[in-house]
Amino acid sequence: MKVLHSHAALYSDYYQLIMAQGYFLAGKINTNAVFDYSFRENPFGSGYVVFAGLSDVLEILETLRFEDEEIEYLRSLGFREEFLQYLKHFRFTGTIYAMHEGEIVFPIEPIVRVEGSLIETQFIETLLLNLVNFQSLIATKASRIRYAAGNRKLIDFGLRRAQGLGGIHASKAAIIGGVDATSNLCAAFNYSLQVSGTQEHSWIQSFGDELTAFRKFAEIYPDNCTLLVDTYNTTRSGLPNAIKVGKEMETRGQRLKAIRLDSGDLATLSKRARVSLDAAKLNYVQIIASNQLDEILIASLIQQGAPIDTFVVGTRLLTAHNCPALRGVYKQSIIGDQPTIKFSDNYMKTTLPGRKKVMRYLDTNGQFNSDGIMLDNEEGIEIFYHPFYTEQTRNVGEFTSKLLMSKVMEDGKIIGKMPTAEESARYVSNRFACLLGEYKRFENPQVYKIGISPSLMRLRAFLFEQMQKGSLMRK
Amino acid sequence: MKVLHSHAALYSDYYQLIMAQGYFLAGKINTNAVFDYSFRENPFGSGYVVFAGLSDVLEILETLRFEDEEIEYLRSLGFREEFLQYLKHFRFTGTIYAMHEGEIVFPIEPIVRVEGSLIETQFIETLLLNLVNFQSLIATKASRIRYAAGNRKLIDFGLRRAQGLGGIHASKAAIIGGVDATSNLCAAFNYSLQVSGTQEHSWIQSFGDELTAFRKFAEIYPDNCTLLVDTYNTTRSGLPNAIKVGKEMETRGQRLKAIRLDSGDLATLSKRARVSLDAAKLNYVQIIASNQLDEILIASLIQQGAPIDTFVVGTRLLTAHNCPALRGVYKQSIIGDQPTIKFSDNYMKTTLPGRKKVMRYLDTNGQFNSDGIMLDNEEGIEIFYHPFYTEQTRNVGEFTSKLLMSKVMEDGKIIGKMPTAEESARYVSNRFACLLGEYKRFENPQVYKIGISPSLMRLRAFLFEQMQKGSLMRK
Repeated sequence: MKVLHSHAALYSDYYQLIMAQGYFLAGKINTNAVFDYSFRENPFGSGYVVFAGLSDVLEILETLRFEDEEIEYLRSLGFREEFLQYLKHFRFTGTIYAMHEGEIVFPIEPIVRVEGSLIETQFIETLLLNLVNFQSLIATKASRIRYAAGNRKLIDFGLRRAQGLGGIHASKAAIIGGVDATSNLCAAFNYSLQVSGTQEHSWIQSFGDELTAFRKFAEIYPDNCTLLVDTYNTTRSGLPNAIKVGKEMETRGQRLKAIRLDSGDLATLSKRARVSLDAAKLNYVQIIASNQLDEILIASLIQQGAPIDTFVVGTRLLTAHNCPALRGVYKQSIIGDQPTIKFSDNYMKTTLPGRKKVMRYLDTNGQFNSDGIMLDNEEGIEIFYHPFYTEQTRNVGEFTSKLLMSKVMEDGKIIGKMPTAEESARYVSNRFACLLGEYKRFENPQVYKIGISPSLMRLRAFLFEQMQKGSLMRK
Repeated sequence: MKVLHSHAALYSDYYQLIMAQGYFLAGKINTNAVFDYSFRENPFGSGYVVFAGLSDVLEILETLRFEDEEIEYLRSLGFREEFLQYLKHFRFTGTIYAMHEGEIVFPIEPIVRVEGSLIETQFIETLLLNLVNFQSLIATKASRIRYAAGNRKLIDFGLRRAQGLGGIHASKAAIIGGVDATSNLCAAFNYSLQVSGTQEHSWIQSFGDELTAFRKFAEIYPDNCTLLVDTYNTTRSGLPNAIKVGKEMETRGQRLKAIRLDSGDLATLSKRARVSLDAAKLNYVQIIASNQLDEILIASLIQQGAPIDTFVVGTRLLTAHNCPALRGVYKQSIIGDQPTIKFSDNYMKTTLPGRKKVMRYLDTNGQFNSDGIMLDNEEGIEIFYHPFYTEQTRNVGEFTSKLLMSKVMEDGKIIGKMPTAEESARYVSNRFACLLGEYKRFENPQVYKIGISPSLMRLRAFLFEQMQKGSLMRK
């Protein structure tokens, strides 16, 4: 059960096919093009983004086909017969360069570069944007929550409040970004994620009284017994009953694993619970907390000394609550063999032309210093320009460098093996360790330096001049 | 291709199956239960919610099965053999009462009531919450955007920024809420929605110069030609080129349909564009505007007199940008034949016990006056209590009334035919007309009156007293 791995051809915008048919009819079937995926702004006021979603995109592209019922549907929309025949045999046969899934990335950098026929490179836009924008957004949110939580355990319980089927990829991206386990069985099954979960209030309600409900759960799940203590009253009822059951379990040689707090003031209640548990010599019983948590609340709870061992995150993680979309874009940078550009009244939205690569510069202790965007055939660049305020330059001569993009698909076939979610999570963790705290802090993080190479700057200036002269506007 | 209509059994939280196995092993396989879906707070500071998502839930429940590979996966997680055998034959055989898809609904009302065995009614929680929370959220956002736009055309272009696969149901719910058409082919195919779309900046870039690109599009799509005018410079290039092509089309007896503005100040540019088009006697050419629009920006553009005929909405609609989750809950109200309740430190989160129904009271001109929640066997209630401040009462004796819930599923089978998205959209439109503007305004809308019946109030008070005496807490 890989959702969308069949029937993905219509996971697209209508105008993608309007344009595809247009190119087909305009005789552009053999024209080649290059497109870049990038984003303009970090979400959440964050200093970085965690790149995710690539493996799903590539796996879907490898098997993308128009099925008969899809062709039939497009016929009903008025697409022409010769184009429908073309679609019947359509395969994605392009070549893709991309950063590693889990890379720490920054605004305006090309993160994915797609090369192939104009029709195929354009057609995959919606699929790529949809999957990469969202998974990168959630992986970034998760990495912020991980940063706040330190080495405490993090569990995702968010499926019920997720944006519909978005929950499937959200739970996976949460794991990539640093969450330990999920309650989402569908995501866990598809992506081999670790699952976690105990019981809900309705379990307690179903046994007539709380103590009986606790005892029954402990009897059935002695090895994995977490008790939810706030159905009636946390301090008067839930906690004393949990302690009673914990002591009873001891007499059977078992151990109560944890209690879960799901309402009220979590700082106060967790401190009280810890004191009561310790007084009952249940020092090993952990405290799990849930209720609309995010990185800010978790940081605050820790700062208040709340003795919480595991944070459950849901709605605010899986919907990226305070910034629910990463506004990534997919822009044409070459048509035929000509570099192209899209201008805008907002200069920050002007695209970078040509086939490009990204180099990361590392200081002596391996920390990320800055990134440089250059044309694909450039080598040994030492001076980079600020991408917009080009009087500002930056010398990277003293740093070691590493190319961030590699070829991940050729002629529509995946090269090598895509990383699992678990592998990507490890990659994130390793890379995140190379990012200074200044870029990770939540309030006003330092802006990571991105430069463009002299040749890239000159190419953009040349195309801008052409535009000013009007040669791009009219013949 | 109905996404999730197969393989939905694992679209759930791990603890649903932990609890299900627990009930199975605790001998509660024949225990019955009733659960209610409701929400506590309107999203977006809105005065109401548009209920959506029901038809997807029911259609999935009708065919829900555990497939062999899913059983195998659960075995690998350690579920017990006798329980796995039970799951192999599991079917949802419950009975569901619900409001009409598209109903205008309000906080704390039971909107869906699920009756059946404890195991089955509990198990479907995640699926129901996920689909109904999200679709109701988006339908509500769309209805706000529709309210702002008046009778101007609204198109959804949001799939690329949607929360992954959430985009599929989002585009459908947007149509239910009042959007006219979508670019999302997958949603349109699955739910028979009207599609819409033209071209992107990359089309313009692909032809060397803008005028050639416009001419080619007009040549291929003379009957549906909308030109995107901001690739290089809207006023210096895009608009004059579009006018030139529009006049050329006239010489062939064709008509340019519209121009699209996608950046810059849309109020200024739309006014300038209207003047230029009219001066060229292209009065019939419409103006389409896009770029991070929502109900607030649309209302502002209209208030400024921007001559925009069609608003394209994307990210801010499909991700419900300023409130990305409806926090609906699914709470047990009866176990066996006993009414149950869940308390909370926050009294507003205390649930309503028992099997309930909702009556809507209408004033003489058919406008919604207030809703009353009562026990299922109650009739002819005239006095309702405020649900929390029970000193406040309300007499509804003068109003006509209409029961809002009906049986939509019996023994796991859908009763009758589920409405299409188009039918639900019409239902929303009709019902919305019965809601006074005071409840629809964006700033500080009036609070719609919801009451609880005397018997329901007494039942809740009785259970609260039992809790105080401790009889729910411990034996």
